[in-house]
Amino acid sequence: MTVRVAIIGAGTMGADHARTLVAHVPGAVLQVVCDANAERAAAVGAETGARGAASDPVEVIRRPDVDAVLVASPDATHGPLTREAISVGKPVLCEKPLAPTSKECLDIAAAEQRAGRRLVQVGFMRRFDPAYVEMKAVLQSGTLGQPLMFHCFHRNVTAPAFFDAQMAITNSAPHEFDIARWLLDTEYAAVTVFRPEAIGPDKIGSPVFMVVKTRSGQLVTIEINNNAAYGYDVRGELVGEQGSVSLRSPARSEVNLALSQSTAYPADWRPRFEDAYRLELQAWIRSIRTGEPAGASAWDGYAATVIAEAAVASLAEGRTAAVSMPETPSLYRAGR
Amino acid sequence: MTVRVAIIGAGTMGADHARTLVAHVPGAVLQVVCDANAERAAAVGAETGARGAASDPVEVIRRPDVDAVLVASPDATHGPLTREAISVGKPVLCEKPLAPTSKECLDIAAAEQRAGRRLVQVGFMRRFDPAYVEMKAVLQSGTLGQPLMFHCFHRNVTAPAFFDAQMAITNSAPHEFDIARWLLDTEYAAVTVFRPEAIGPDKIGSPVFMVVKTRSGQLVTIEINNNAAYGYDVRGELVGEQGSVSLRSPARSEVNLALSQSTAYPADWRPRFEDAYRLELQAWIRSIRTGEPAGASAWDGYAATVIAEAAVASLAEGRTAAVSMPETPSLYRAGR
Amino acid sequence: MTVRVAIIGAGTMGADHARTLVAHVPGAVLQVVCDANAERAAAVGAETGARGAASDPVEVIRRPDVDAVLVASPDATHGPLTREAISVGKPVLCEKPLAPTSKECLDIAAAEQRAGRRLVQVGFMRRFDPAYVEMKAVLQSGTLGQPLMFHCFHRNVTAPAFFDAQMAITNSAPHEFDIARWLLDTEYAAVTVFRPEAIGPDKIGSPVFMVVKTRSGQLVTIEINNNAAYGYDVRGELVGEQGSVSLRSPARSEVNLALSQSTAYPADWRPRFEDAYRLELQAWIRSIRTGEPAGASAWDGYAATVIAEAAVASLAEGRTAAVSMPETPSLYRAGR
Amino acid sequence: MTVRVAIIGAGTMGADHARTLVAHVPGAVLQVVCDANAERAAAVGAETGARGAASDPVEVIRRPDVDAVLVASPDATHGPLTREAISVGKPVLCEKPLAPTSKECLDIAAAEQRAGRRLVQVGFMRRFDPAYVEMKAVLQSGTLGQPLMFHCFHRNVTAPAFFDAQMAITNSAPHEFDIARWLLDTEYAAVTVFRPEAIGPDKIGSPVFMVVKTRSGQLVTIEINNNAAYGYDVRGELVGEQGSVSLRSPARSEVNLALSQSTAYPADWRPRFEDAYRLELQAWIRSIRTGEPAGASAWDGYAATVIAEAAVASLAEGRTAAVSMPETPSLYRAGR
Repeated sequence: MTVRVAIIGAGTMGADHARTLVAHVPGAVLQVVCDANAERAAAVGAETGARGAASDPVEVIRRPDVDAVLVASPDATHGPLTREAISVGKPVLCEKPLAPTSKECLDIAAAEQRAGRRLVQVGFMRRFDPAYVEMKAVLQSGTLGQPLMFHCFHRNVTAPAFFDAQMAITNSAPHEFDIARWLLDTEYAAVTVFRPEAIGPDKIGSPVFMVVKTRSGQLVTIEINNNAAYGYDVRGELVGEQGSVSLRSPARSEVNLALSQSTAYPADWRPRFEDAYRLELQAWIRSIRTGEPAGASAWDGYAATVIAEAAVASLAEGRTAAVSMPETPSLYRAGR
Repeated sequence: MTVRVAIIGAGTMGADHARTLVAHVPGAVLQVVCDANAERAAAVGAETGARGAASDPVEVIRRPDVDAVLVASPDATHGPLTREAISVGKPVLCEKPLAPTSKECLDIAAAEQRAGRRLVQVGFMRRFDPAYVEMKAVLQSGTLGQPLMFHCFHRNVTAPAFFDAQMAITNSAPHEFDIARWLLDTEYAAVTVFRPEAIGPDKIGSPVFMVVKTRSGQLVTIEINNNAAYGYDVRGELVGEQGSVSLRSPARSEVNLALSQSTAYPADWRPRFEDAYRLELQAWIRSIRTGEPAGASAWDGYAATVIAEAAVASLAEGRTAAVSMPETPSLYRAGR
Repeated sequence: MTVRVAIIGAGTMGADHARTLVAHVPGAVLQVVCDANAERAAAVGAETGARGAASDPVEVIRRPDVDAVLVASPDATHGPLTREAISVGKPVLCEKPLAPTSKECLDIAAAEQRAGRRLVQVGFMRRFDPAYVEMKAVLQSGTLGQPLMFHCFHRNVTAPAFFDAQMAITNSAPHEFDIARWLLDTEYAAVTVFRPEAIGPDKIGSPVFMVVKTRSGQLVTIEINNNAAYGYDVRGELVGEQGSVSLRSPARSEVNLALSQSTAYPADWRPRFEDAYRLELQAWIRSIRTGEPAGASAWDGYAATVIAEAAVASLAEGRTAAVSMPETPSLYRAGR
Repeated sequence: MTVRVAIIGAGTMGADHARTLVAHVPGAVLQVVCDANAERAAAVGAETGARGAASDPVEVIRRPDVDAVLVASPDATHGPLTREAISVGKPVLCEKPLAPTSKECLDIAAAEQRAGRRLVQVGFMRRFDPAYVEMKAVLQSGTLGQPLMFHCFHRNVTAPAFFDAQMAITNSAPHEFDIARWLLDTEYAAVTVFRPEAIGPDKIGSPVFMVVKTRSGQLVTIEINNNAAYGYDVRGELVGEQGSVSLRSPARSEVNLALSQSTAYPADWRPRFEDAYRLELQAWIRSIRTGEPAGASAWDGYAATVIAEAAVASLAEGRTAAVSMPETPSLYRAGR
């Protein structure tokens, strides 16, 4: 069975997914590329050899020749389109965030629970990144003992012009929120947000630094620095009782020149997470063919939004904010 | 058009290629797995979901429902099977060596020239390894100036019981011979082989050290150490007039434990060249679909055997051996 | 002029200073080793070739054949002995802390101000560590732009049995407090202390994590982890607007063995800061001979105690604590 | 007893030694700086606080207020001045080479043997470099098994205008020759020299690549590249049966800037071997005070010249040259 995929949204993320699907994922066919901008849909469709292009996402989701839906349209549409896919019983890979508010995420999870089976995978691709997978394997091997702290650094070259500290939390940090929760296999209890004010009060792209407590008593510290200037750089160190494990820079060569030895940073996230996106799509298609869910669930998408909302509150009010999550519904309990 | 691939040989290499093809290469279908041992063919076929299994390679190559052939059978069969594929006009990816002797390689190249078009790709997968590709890009960028030396280290954990110094040259070194020639875009002029005798005269798995001169005046130094014990480790440093570029260890995580910081080595070549094998197969299928040759040609396979033979002579006679290559035929002149 | 030095305290620190002084510091002579335990004083004196040994520190400080005093006795004696040295007008290098409370530190600074000249150097040896010095040079070169964050990690193999979170703050963190203040050339404004509770409430050697705000608006984050188990490891990364600079592991060799590549961590602070201690003593003796003060002043010692006290309050009360420092007296304004 | 040292030669090396002696070596006093150029002697003497300056080396060596002699004058004077020191029974630290020819070196060793005791230390400071010392300790620990190969890379930024391939061998390589012999504790048997000709026949600063066989059957490979352009960089990897140990870059900080992570190379040998020079002088003074010889002997200096001469012959004649050494005289047999 070949899975006929519709990609909704032909912007940067959607087009990248389309390219990855056709170049690296056997067992799937790119049935249709859909974008509100029909020309863009057509262009990406032509480039990737998709069988068709379209501009009405709901129609596309309902088409009988579409087996599965990849949602990479603007954030505000994630919720409605994912629910649409659920309503017609089709598997859906939704780019993060699952929805901009925790309320909406919860509604999606509720719809999925009513459907009675896992249909939604959220695009937290880091769960497929070989480095994080290796880190989790080291943790699970037990050599580090109990985990105590997880230090995360997320750095971009330049923040988009509209990116303030709040957006750093709602837009960049969810990747950290999700991967730390997945690694530590726990829920969050509280979050405290700090902001270096050295660069002045109004600066776009101001970094934030968060200290998150988990219910199991670990500390997760997160620097989000979207104006780091020097390169796209994601780091992580998991500290246990007996030792620690760190992500290593994935640079493949080293240059000696002009009194320095150097390795390169990419200018954006794509080279860094190229493998993760490829493995994510392969796992998604495999999960559709086998019926075994893979990756982050709708509940994981909800959890990332809950902690982001608490962090926004902490930033606004200058104090620690508690994080409150209902019990995990049974649909989401296995397979984490 | 989906390319229907026959894999000849279901040993370690053949089975790995089969797995890679079905998991990572859209546009191809694994039509048949063929092995002299019919059970092994059936087992690998079943594991990978191949459409069929067989035990007669010539018959398989001639089947009308086979579009392309991947030869991963024992070395001695490479030549005859590759020529068979040429004779029926089918693209063939032949594992290295193209053939055990330069004479046979030359015959294959002659057959291909008579066929009038490039049908043969030799399995020098390192040309697709992202690290070597990056190294070549750095060289081509010009920042290093003219290349002067290329230092290569090839280390395995343990040599098979039958692996003496000569086999290190004919079996392991061809990867180095090919990649250095590809990087430097030149032919070889002479080779001198040394052997550390500290470990005694008879030891299986004795390392060899070679100094190769190119026609352009560069030195390529090559350590082949198949009993290196500590891990599978392939290194390279290209030294130019202005600086150098090195391959970097591809480890993805770093562990702090028991008074040391460490990264892991793989136990064999597969994790190290997983990406290269995947990209090699994708490039091969793409080349079949587009008609544009990719990777190492039959002539490149011949060149690797010529230098290996000279190195064997140098080892045996304890002196520098000249390397002699005819002019590159026109079929092989473009697209290097 | 040869400086005749008395070392007060012949425990681990005092004995190490004695060895460093005689092995590496021309221009000084070890006049006397003094310890309440006369046998210990005699043993260290004999080992290092000191001219004499004694057990009464006040008497030693007053001896006419003693030009300068190095205080490495128990913490509680630092204040009285340093003031004694000031009272007789002799230069004194006092191990950290200058005194256990900020009140006492302030008294020492007041005494020194009455003396009208800088006599006190506090043993914050990291200011002489070549790695931190290089870090400060990079910052001062301007290539990083304004500093925004400084991330510090201080890890020991095992905490002494009596080391709780509070002692981590008062005993280990002062090194971080001082070096960050020196690097950033600013005062502290507030501190928030977190503790991973995953290891249970009572565990000795519990790590703490602090977020400190400076008056200039930077964030200094500090992990103190005295039970890190894997090795003695001090890290730092200074993040500026344009890039960052990190301390690098000072390991001098790299071993490939048993499927891993590794570098060694020392088991305690001595190998890591061997150079710093040597350069600190050389700078101290030079400062005595030239009259130009070097290293951390009594005021710097006071500042480290003030922030430590605020951090202890934050730990106890579970909230951010403000840090309040009087204006820097004129004696301490130059030469920072 | 304070050792009164005369430094002969106030050029780069002599002035550096003078600075190191007065800054880092207790137990010694810089009695006189001597240079054929009296002004230069006076300038270095004044800068370092030497007690006097002079221009006649023989007179200086004979002065009763001089206890020990450091020879850092031009190479051609090393032999005569060292013999002069031997003739008056004074310890002498002679910069490498001990003498330009093996014949002269042998004469010096003969004179020392007649004197009946070790008076000569040759300035192979790498034996005191903490990285090489660590490498030797790893080898001696036995974890690597028998040593098989030692790969050495010696790179300078720019060669002086008169530095051809032969000078690379006689002037730079002796450091490698000595350190490899010291590490492996063996004598050399043969050497083969190669030269990359890519850069043309006449170029000053052409690299050379040597393969040296030891009597114990190891291979020592040595790249001397004095025009490496990118930085001063000395590397070494010792490969044993079970694993390997490498020197690690001694950079102390790491900078993230402009899409790269980098560490700095020094522009010349001084920062790299600062520790080694300091420890060498300290060991020399200690050896004078204790009577226990330290560092490289006259015989070691002779051995380095013998292999250099063989390498020059190999370069000239384009073939492997045998290395022949007489048996080690008894004076030099202990304490290696």
